[in-house]
Amino acid sequence: PVNGDRLVARLKALGQIGALPEGGVCRLALTPEDGAGRDLVVGWMREQGLDVAIDPIGNIFGTRRGTQDGPSVMMGSHIDTVATGGLYDGNLGVLAGLEVLQALDDAGIATVHPVTVAAFTNEEGARFQPDMLGSLVHVGDLPLQEALDTISIDGTRLGDDLADIGYAGTAALGGIKAAAYLEYHIEQGPVLEAEGIDIGVVEGVQGISWTEITLSGRSSHAGATPMRLRRDAGLAAARIAHGVADIAKSIGGDMVGTVGSLRLRPNLVNVVAEMAQMTVDLRHPQEKVLAEAEARLAALVARVAEEEHVSFTRRQLARFQPVAFDRDLVGRVEHTARSLGLSTRRMFSGAGHDAQMLARTCPAAMVFVPSIAGLSHNTAEYTAPGDIANGLAVLGTLALELAGR
Amino acid sequence: PVNGDRLVARLKALGQIGALPEGGVCRLALTPEDGAGRDLVVGWMREQGLDVAIDPIGNIFGTRRGTQDGPSVMMGSHIDTVATGGLYDGNLGVLAGLEVLQALDDAGIATVHPVTVAAFTNEEGARFQPDMLGSLVHVGDLPLQEALDTISIDGTRLGDDLADIGYAGTAALGGIKAAAYLEYHIEQGPVLEAEGIDIGVVEGVQGISWTEITLSGRSSHAGATPMRLRRDAGLAAARIAHGVADIAKSIGGDMVGTVGSLRLRPNLVNVVAEMAQMTVDLRHPQEKVLAEAEARLAALVARVAEEEHVSFTRRQLARFQPVAFDRDLVGRVEHTARSLGLSTRRMFSGAGHDAQMLARTCPAAMVFVPSIAGLSHNTAEYTAPGDIANGLAVLGTLALELAGR
Ligand SMILES: NC(=O)NCCC(=O)O
Ligand SMILES: NC(=O)NCCC(=O)O
Repeated sequence: PVNGDRLVARLKALGQIGALPEGGVCRLALTPEDGAGRDLVVGWMREQGLDVAIDPIGNIFGTRRGTQDGPSVMMGSHIDTVATGGLYDGNLGVLAGLEVLQALDDAGIATVHPVTVAAFTNEEGARFQPDMLGSLVHVGDLPLQEALDTISIDGTRLGDDLADIGYAGTAALGGIKAAAYLEYHIEQGPVLEAEGIDIGVVEGVQGISWTEITLSGRSSHAGATPMRLRRDAGLAAARIAHGVADIAKSIGGDMVGTVGSLRLRPNLVNVVAEMAQMTVDLRHPQEKVLAEAEARLAALVARVAEEEHVSFTRRQLARFQPVAFDRDLVGRVEHTARSLGLSTRRMFSGAGHDAQMLARTCPAAMVFVPSIAGLSHNTAEYTAPGDIANGLAVLGTLALELAGR
Repeated sequence: PVNGDRLVARLKALGQIGALPEGGVCRLALTPEDGAGRDLVVGWMREQGLDVAIDPIGNIFGTRRGTQDGPSVMMGSHIDTVATGGLYDGNLGVLAGLEVLQALDDAGIATVHPVTVAAFTNEEGARFQPDMLGSLVHVGDLPLQEALDTISIDGTRLGDDLADIGYAGTAALGGIKAAAYLEYHIEQGPVLEAEGIDIGVVEGVQGISWTEITLSGRSSHAGATPMRLRRDAGLAAARIAHGVADIAKSIGGDMVGTVGSLRLRPNLVNVVAEMAQMTVDLRHPQEKVLAEAEARLAALVARVAEEEHVSFTRRQLARFQPVAFDRDLVGRVEHTARSLGLSTRRMFSGAGHDAQMLARTCPAAMVFVPSIAGLSHNTAEYTAPGDIANGLAVLGTLALELAGR
């Protein structure tokens, strides 16, 4: 009895907050826009009569009681976005969870176990690193104080921003236990659409390695400094960025490498840069291959720094090994989809997800639906209403089965 | 009778305005700091009894009358700096001119021709392009309105910033004619110090080509987008920056190429960049070689853009052919230095200078003194007091000779 149209309407309403002129949305974690988005979602939770709990890292939990107490069947994701985000990434998993609970209410169904919808803080990792920060704190693998002391790309402290938007909650960390965790998400890659498949059955998430590299050279005059006397931090950064793509292409297969952020100082036309700061994002489904890419990156940075006469420091922003989801729960996702007449394909996730953190403490699995042109972290991100309804049906059916009538 | 100590004291006083914690100075053109620096210099001009004229582009002229009217012997340079600037670049030429006039006063010497000290607007070209903008307007080769409408790297309009700091003057543009122009400047390169030479006799300025390149790709997810499906504007920019250095090195000799400014959008760790904007600074003493470098850059940009599936636009920010200074006046600089017992070396300037614009309308020449370690556009920029006094003596002696007692 789930209603896809109602879900799409809510996705659009939430997408109004932080809406960009060209379409899409910018609702970076713990900005005022994120605060307004949270207010809307928490308002819907309260309208639906859920018990709302907010923990000290700002994770939001809305729980519908079961006929028995005990661990919840948890559905969730996140509502923060990147700066060039779409309406679906993260938001879909949270709002679909609320739609499932609404449908249970509409049908007058009581479940045995409680069902909780979670929205985790700073999943994107765009404004604060690491990504999946809220769920990592939730499962107890990142100390709260360390998380609160994280500094954003804007130079602000996470704990301060959280207090500013009113989401430094008081519910016990990890207080809401999950018996199982289901995350419904758009694929964010091109496979399902290309192969005409309805549902991606996610077996796991590839490994993620984020490094910040800061190169220190010497500023000098762009006209008067011979090439051989330069210590050009900008050139060193450009060579490393070029080399990261070469590493990914030469390893081949599923290997990806990205320099998404790069800043020069003083960043002026006629001044050889004295400083460059860049991020490197490396990912692969196999730990061994990811580690090899990291080793190649380290060698590249050392070689380029020596050749360009610059010094460097490295800072690990995130490092997560590949994660395999619970085999039984993954099998149930597949079975549920097929029983609804949907085509399925097993796949690994290219993006990181809160499910990979929840998987450390309970069986977790994910449901993917197609992303048009494989686009995500792009304002044109889109998933068709029919596909949204398909995934919603899988999520609702399996959640109810797990929660028991 | 010129006093090097008095000149050094004024350089230090002016260097207080916009002083950086680590030393050096940031007094970018038409910022409040530039305004305060101008106030100090204009104050000194008035104390010295000079006739002060400020033209509509903010060029400042302080004139000491001669016994005859007519064109001036003009000394000058600029007082704006880059963001990582030193105390000497530009400031030396302006304050040395004032010291020469002070010495004439002290000695009670009247000159036949008027002598003018000029401080030209936005010579650096760091905040507004092109460089040498004020002197280019002064000689009539850049229309005033076009110059006033120039947009800074901060997004402000030049004419508005000029009015804000109170330097939108009313003196007639080009109203003060120069019979000759002498610019005293630090070398900003390593040659004089390396060869132990006192005075650089500048025969000309190398050609300058500044291009802004904007690359448009497609933002997408750094984890979920296969390498072959990317349209990564950041990778394209990095490849071009790398290629610019390769072009300069493969042409060799005096060729230099620099990417000093590079910005990505959205500039986030896990988003393939949708946009990159970069500057390319190419320079060579010969027009033919500079044009060849430009052609290679154009081919590089086109090739990389095609390979990375990004589109691009180009905007010329500055383009000046190599300039040869007046042979006679250059010879007189050399002769004056030698007659003072100083060692000399003829050389080309690596940096652009207001003298290259003044050379379009009158005989112009330059006097260089050594830069320690060849450093400029660096907060550690330094020239020893003895060297400063040497150049000052050459400037003062020749200016007096040209102005006539
Ligand atoms: N799902 C998603 O976009 N997560 C953001 C973290 C990452 O994978 O970069
Ligand atoms: N002298 C000097 O640094 N001029 C700035 C313009 C340039 O050459 O880049």
